[in-house]
Amino acid sequence: MRFLHTADWHIGKKLHEFDLVDEQQDAYQQIAEIAKEEKVDAIVIAGDLYDRKVPSEESINQLDAMILDLNLTRKFPILAVSGNHDSAPRLGSGSHWYEATHFYLHTTIAQALTPIEMADTQFFLLPYFEPFQVRHFFEDDSIQNVQQAMNRLVAEMQKNFDATKQHVLVAHFFAAGSQHVDSETTVEVGGLDAIAVDSMATFDYVALGHLHGKDALHAETVKYSGSPVKFSLSEAKQQKGVWIVDTAPYNAKFVPIKPKKDIEILTESFATLINPAYYEKVNRSNFIAISLTDVDVITDVMARLRKIYPYIINLDRKYGIQDVESQKRIDPNLDPMTLLTDFYNQATDSQMSKDQQKWAAQALTVAKEDDE
Amino acid sequence: MRFLHTADWHIGKKLHEFDLVDEQQDAYQQIAEIAKEEKVDAIVIAGDLYDRKVPSEESINQLDAMILDLNLTRKFPILAVSGNHDSAPRLGSGSHWYEATHFYLHTTIAQALTPIEMADTQFFLLPYFEPFQVRHFFEDDSIQNVQQAMNRLVAEMQKNFDATKQHVLVAHFFAAGSQHVDSETTVEVGGLDAIAVDSMATFDYVALGHLHGKDALHAETVKYSGSPVKFSLSEAKQQKGVWIVDTAPYNAKFVPIKPKKDIEILTESFATLINPAYYEKVNRSNFIAISLTDVDVITDVMARLRKIYPYIINLDRKYGIQDVESQKRIDPNLDPMTLLTDFYNQATDSQMSKDQQKWAAQALTVAKEDDE
Repeated sequence: MRFLHTADWHIGKKLHEFDLVDEQQDAYQQIAEIAKEEKVDAIVIAGDLYDRKVPSEESINQLDAMILDLNLTRKFPILAVSGNHDSAPRLGSGSHWYEATHFYLHTTIAQALTPIEMADTQFFLLPYFEPFQVRHFFEDDSIQNVQQAMNRLVAEMQKNFDATKQHVLVAHFFAAGSQHVDSETTVEVGGLDAIAVDSMATFDYVALGHLHGKDALHAETVKYSGSPVKFSLSEAKQQKGVWIVDTAPYNAKFVPIKPKKDIEILTESFATLINPAYYEKVNRSNFIAISLTDVDVITDVMARLRKIYPYIINLDRKYGIQDVESQKRIDPNLDPMTLLTDFYNQATDSQMSKDQQKWAAQALTVAKEDDE
Repeated sequence: MRFLHTADWHIGKKLHEFDLVDEQQDAYQQIAEIAKEEKVDAIVIAGDLYDRKVPSEESINQLDAMILDLNLTRKFPILAVSGNHDSAPRLGSGSHWYEATHFYLHTTIAQALTPIEMADTQFFLLPYFEPFQVRHFFEDDSIQNVQQAMNRLVAEMQKNFDATKQHVLVAHFFAAGSQHVDSETTVEVGGLDAIAVDSMATFDYVALGHLHGKDALHAETVKYSGSPVKFSLSEAKQQKGVWIVDTAPYNAKFVPIKPKKDIEILTESFATLINPAYYEKVNRSNFIAISLTDVDVITDVMARLRKIYPYIINLDRKYGIQDVESQKRIDPNLDPMTLLTDFYNQATDSQMSKDQQKWAAQALTVAKEDDE
């Protein structure tokens, strides 16, 4: 069979103060069109459908309309799990009714162990979990970390494997590359919270959510789809999209999603940025992150740039700011009294009185004694 | 056909600091059993399923399990609307999938106008609404109050009446008795927010939610079911239950729900209340409201009563408290200086000094001048 793998929709997310409703709606439309063009048999959504555990009413309406369109109008089966940003009970409310139209949304550990069978494949839908939930579920106090929890879950899922079928895991967690693992109880790949790719080797494909870039992991059959929309400056250079996966013979191809509003980073001087000859060539309807190459103070810099670039999401200084009022930079190696005197001079534009100097010296002595 | 009419479940509600989870679960079980014994064809829930617009995860799980049991396990069709305590988008999320198993949950005005047809009856499911929503929906600025909104809604519903069917309205609002209404634009029954029973005369039955007592309205075919559980001291004497309604020939009978923990009001002296001969005859697992007949101060009264009555929901004094330290009650007709002196004496157990008397007199003079 052939399915589309997406994740991390984060409906309700904002990029700095900007709403992403239109970007998310546009990306959704592209996903629906890709599903149609690629003639997929099902759509996998690997968690973090919402950005918040208590989404706004507007976010609820938006996601509801998307899923309704995919499942009830376009008739795609859906296989989905809750992520760490979702509230499992809130998202899962009503999900028992969804299965009649092949919309499978699993939000509990119990649900994860029983596969959903579709065509040649068994899908195990594992929601985001904390180790204590797995410990309680199996009443097994030896489960103390996420890798131990995962090992137990995989062992239980395997009991329900039909050997004549393909096996796909849909999950939402931090997976890390297949480095050597010292012992069964120690995970040494990317920190304590990571699950080793090796421990999922029994599955023909693992459709992951959690990390927002498809290149977060390089494994043949364990993949992040990444988010469909760029959600932060750190995602500016990522290619967003979805995986189209064929189960037998196995094949996975990445189909890109074109951003409606891209994130662009401009590293320029203020003079250049406000020069029409420059900015008229910039797509100023994009989200813009500016890294100013100037080092001097510029009055009202953000307001002046906003008039030209309405969607500024970040403003920083590539080389820091030089205080032009005092050409002398403060040297942290100076003695405390000199530092204090300099600071007073700069801050008040006047000299300390004799009394003030005496009080300052006393205070510094006391502070030094306290320190020792 | 025959249906059960209930409303105002308020899942998540607390009675003072006490959880009502068990009471609500017990009442739900009785409702399900009544539905079975009375062989009803459907269950009507007229709004306020939750107590809060953002219910807790526990409340979501509780209501979800109840509806799942009624609709998916026991196979009862359900006809429901959102109330003023519900968030329409939150409650309505996923409701498009519910209809496949005859669970109709309407949370928008648009949905209210198209009837759900079941056996011999057309059900119009009208969620709680504000006049402005109806004004916007019909783009009709003449709709300024709830009665005008209702008149328009009823007129629109009537356009979809099938004359060969019975017509039932399910709604959630404050309805008031059929007194004379002066003009179409003025409602003079129970204040501006009330809808006149007369304006619903076109329906064969109106299943209402909002008021918690079935006796809030006395009309042959327009009824409140009331809540299944007593939610406040003011509901202590109400008989809770559900209506079993036959459409043709019309009949409505009230079937009581027995409280798991009743609310009991004890009007007694402290000495009586702490006397085993008295309290051993009281069902102390009930919620207890105490009206003390004593007038004197009793040290640590609540803590002492709680040791005997663990579920005290209210404590008041039938005759007020007499301050035994000063037998003289303060007479509000005394002049301000005397009142102030008395108060000082009582509060500090000492006399004002000469200076204090002078300051007080000055302050009172200034206050008097300000007053005039």
